[in-house]
Amino acid sequence: MSTNGTEKKWDRRSADTAERMAAAARFIGPGKQFKPEDTVALLEAVIRPGDRVNIEGNNQKQADFLAESLNKVDKSKIHDLHMVQSAVPLPVHLDLFESGIAKKLDFAFGGPQAGRVAEFIRDGKMELGAIHTYLELFSRYFLDLTPKVSLICAYKADKKGNLYTGFNTEDTPTIVEATKFSQGIVIAQVNEIVDELPRVDIPADWIDAVVQSPKPFFIEPLFTRDPALITDSQILLAMLCLKGIYGEYEVKRLNHGIGFLTSAIELMLPTYGAELGLKGKICTHMALNPHPTMIPAIEDGWVQQIHCFGGELGMEKFVAARPDVFFVGPDGSLRSNRAYSQAAGQYACDMFIGGTLQIDKYGNSSTATANRVAGFGGAPNMGSDAHGRRHSTDAWLKCGAEQPTLDRTLGNMPRGKKLVVQGVETFGEGRAPVFVEELDAWKLAKNANLPLPPVMIYADDLTHIVTEEGIAYLNRAPDIEARMAAIRAVAGYTEIGLKADPAETKRLREQRIVMTPEDLGVDRKRADRSMLAARSIQDLVTWSGGLYNPPARFRNW
Amino acid sequence: MSTNGTEKKWDRRSADTAERMAAAARFIGPGKQFKPEDTVALLEAVIRPGDRVNIEGNNQKQADFLAESLNKVDKSKIHDLHMVQSAVPLPVHLDLFESGIAKKLDFAFGGPQAGRVAEFIRDGKMELGAIHTYLELFSRYFLDLTPKVSLICAYKADKKGNLYTGFNTEDTPTIVEATKFSQGIVIAQVNEIVDELPRVDIPADWIDAVVQSPKPFFIEPLFTRDPALITDSQILLAMLCLKGIYGEYEVKRLNHGIGFLTSAIELMLPTYGAELGLKGKICTHMALNPHPTMIPAIEDGWVQQIHCFGGELGMEKFVAARPDVFFVGPDGSLRSNRAYSQAAGQYACDMFIGGTLQIDKYGNSSTATANRVAGFGGAPNMGSDAHGRRHSTDAWLKCGAEQPTLDRTLGNMPRGKKLVVQGVETFGEGRAPVFVEELDAWKLAKNANLPLPPVMIYADDLTHIVTEEGIAYLNRAPDIEARMAAIRAVAGYTEIGLKADPAETKRLREQRIVMTPEDLGVDRKRADRSMLAARSIQDLVTWSGGLYNPPARFRNW
Repeated sequence: MSTNGTEKKWDRRSADTAERMAAAARFIGPGKQFKPEDTVALLEAVIRPGDRVNIEGNNQKQADFLAESLNKVDKSKIHDLHMVQSAVPLPVHLDLFESGIAKKLDFAFGGPQAGRVAEFIRDGKMELGAIHTYLELFSRYFLDLTPKVSLICAYKADKKGNLYTGFNTEDTPTIVEATKFSQGIVIAQVNEIVDELPRVDIPADWIDAVVQSPKPFFIEPLFTRDPALITDSQILLAMLCLKGIYGEYEVKRLNHGIGFLTSAIELMLPTYGAELGLKGKICTHMALNPHPTMIPAIEDGWVQQIHCFGGELGMEKFVAARPDVFFVGPDGSLRSNRAYSQAAGQYACDMFIGGTLQIDKYGNSSTATANRVAGFGGAPNMGSDAHGRRHSTDAWLKCGAEQPTLDRTLGNMPRGKKLVVQGVETFGEGRAPVFVEELDAWKLAKNANLPLPPVMIYADDLTHIVTEEGIAYLNRAPDIEARMAAIRAVAGYTEIGLKADPAETKRLREQRIVMTPEDLGVDRKRADRSMLAARSIQDLVTWSGGLYNPPARFRNW
Repeated sequence: MSTNGTEKKWDRRSADTAERMAAAARFIGPGKQFKPEDTVALLEAVIRPGDRVNIEGNNQKQADFLAESLNKVDKSKIHDLHMVQSAVPLPVHLDLFESGIAKKLDFAFGGPQAGRVAEFIRDGKMELGAIHTYLELFSRYFLDLTPKVSLICAYKADKKGNLYTGFNTEDTPTIVEATKFSQGIVIAQVNEIVDELPRVDIPADWIDAVVQSPKPFFIEPLFTRDPALITDSQILLAMLCLKGIYGEYEVKRLNHGIGFLTSAIELMLPTYGAELGLKGKICTHMALNPHPTMIPAIEDGWVQQIHCFGGELGMEKFVAARPDVFFVGPDGSLRSNRAYSQAAGQYACDMFIGGTLQIDKYGNSSTATANRVAGFGGAPNMGSDAHGRRHSTDAWLKCGAEQPTLDRTLGNMPRGKKLVVQGVETFGEGRAPVFVEELDAWKLAKNANLPLPPVMIYADDLTHIVTEEGIAYLNRAPDIEARMAAIRAVAGYTEIGLKADPAETKRLREQRIVMTPEDLGVDRKRADRSMLAARSIQDLVTWSGGLYNPPARFRNW
């Protein structure tokens, strides 16, 4: 009955993989092991021009040895690769495009290479697929961006090829599952090959070849903020957040974006949070990396459970000693998992709070600048209202019920809404105004030939803006005009803020759409570092009972 | 520096687990095995009153032996359990509440037990936590609904306790990871214990105890639709969908809800789809169970890749013989995975199409009825606009660009939109009108004491309604009044439809907000079963070259 006259082949993927692995067989010994010095030759055997290739490298651990080896392959043999991977933070990730080994990029986060990404796109060295948020990119691994070859990293392998990814499991299970079960090829670099693993994170079945890298994989402490650098202004914002949002909505389940404001909030739970009587009422469940600035709140008994996207250097022993709070295996080390933590951040959390570089007059925000293709990591996923959510919590119901406009979209049907908060000083890095007429994302879209300006959080998802002027409760605004007026009211001396009409701001304050520190009963004079439960990295070490072991660059004693 | 004077314990979870496992140790032999006859005693040893317990049982495979055994425990020892699990389709799932062993339920899908769920809530036998969509429930496993004990099922275990979940991997990896790494207890029933597994799906480290169940686990073919039962009316709807939506937007990446309409569409790809010149332009990548009605389109070369939530009875050999299309392990069998497929359905797909029992005059829809707490499975997750999405595709951009109203929420910022389509006959099951003034979900909310009516798809997410009257392009409506008018225009002879104003409908047709079959150039007279590439289960077997092995109840020859 088939309309095809000829016999169709249905195992091209596996036959192709078998052929490549046959070519690589002479390098691979027992336990799937190969020698570091054969790495380039092995990659040349298993990779073909135009392949979709993943180099594991989110914003924490990096398969750096395999990335460097891929840079050394014969360009006449391997070129025009389509890189599909979480992040490109290392110079070697971009060198692949410089040399022509790679041609196209689909990713989520640029980090320090964001400027080079923009430059390469402009110069035609790189074709940009799209900028994603992590969970979205992982989703596409299973649908239309499945890697043919993945180069991953783990702490340890055993002699059968089982892997231990432990504290920094992160993206590995997702990458490996998408690659291996589409009959692709998975190659792992490990720090050590041992007789017995502390536990099995990835079964040997799922791995094709393992190399002990000449040095341990590169890893960065990206979520460590030194309490000594927190300013009084950030402390004021944190007070506003705690009283006007955390306390107001009694937010129990949430994610904190990276930054000094959220670190300040974390450090003020045992102080100002306790004074407000919020213990047990807020921050009981979090999707969060093991932030060192969470130590005092954890020790003080605020937190019931944290699920982690990844690890954080120096927090290994502290996490292992707090298995009631963290997800820890029978071996005693954390199992982080970015996919599940992003899902929890999207669907199980009632609030996302983070910062941004720019907010436009409508409330759209972005960290994109004209010449840097940075990406947003996980923020858009967690900083958006998950319309698929169907369970209720008090915070979510209250935020939704405050919206006066739902009848214009849903008729008489009620719905809750996620709290999506941006905390910013009106003038940010380099005294640049955060509130702008038009986002730089528009210029980037033009420069990088993107179909849409890269927005981190869209105006209809953003519910609250917190600045030193007060809080704009955007969810309470009856229409876009009121929302824009509320934004102007908290935009301080920026051009946007200078357009605020005092009479209108007064009305918004009466309607509780805008609340100043005075309206909220937050005493600006108290906003100083005495509010912090820990004022230095050393204080954090003390709080942890010596379990926190800060990376060298954070040690100044 | 701690504010606690007393020493705090941080390993209560693992200490508690160790104590329970010590009590169970006498039942557990080498390879973590225990005897079927010891199951009740083992469960009594490891479960405590009030525990959060998961019984694996989505809408396909079921850990039925463990569920039955849990029903036999001593109620004076084990009671008031909080069940957190995907579905409760088996009578034994509800018997637990009847007897008082369980008290509270958090779930996603009720299936045939939906009536009893409603009854038990009314009678105070069950406290309902919330109705979730699958990915949302999985997310909460990692945040605030982590199971203490999970009772799972697999095809095979080896003598170390590694598991083979193969074709029906489904929810297992997610449940096990959430439970085991929170130091909970994972107990598996398997059909067989063997020396060597075809592959390892779940490492032995993650499992505490394994039992070979007296008979293989129960499993249902839920996604099989017999082509013989497809009606001419469904074929007309399918023609409208293919021409007016699939073709209009060139939708390549999508999910199909369960039902005869989507089965008709699948069976018309090689016929009407080909006639419209859509091969290669639509349905190339799908998040989908292995629907038997997809066989002709796959054989005809329409589909590049399918990722599956679960398996489907009878499709094992066909899937194994099509590894270029499906995710298949080195052993040759499917690796399904509900969490990843739901993520793909949400973030990587451009369209969700399904059916419903009711749509209100605003466009909110639900399958809830006054006396059945059914849940929605995965539909709300896939049938919602994922605001966290940041990559562009042509279909998504076009659907977004057609919205005339985005400026009222985002100002001048453009954004794409997912196509969310509901295809319904205006009078559905039992000739009940699908279009209604008010959803029965309101009555259920009252009866079951829910904080919100359980809506499957909210009006602001729904972009298209397809009925025998034509297509309402809701995304093109400038405001809620126009959207309501478009709904009336396709609502036929229902009470809602009878309120349509012919002059208004004419204007909507001119604006292409409503299009009739005639507007679309779809010839109603051609809507008959000759359009189907396969007209019976037997035809599907033929198309598959004998690889499809239909379950007995679908064999009528």
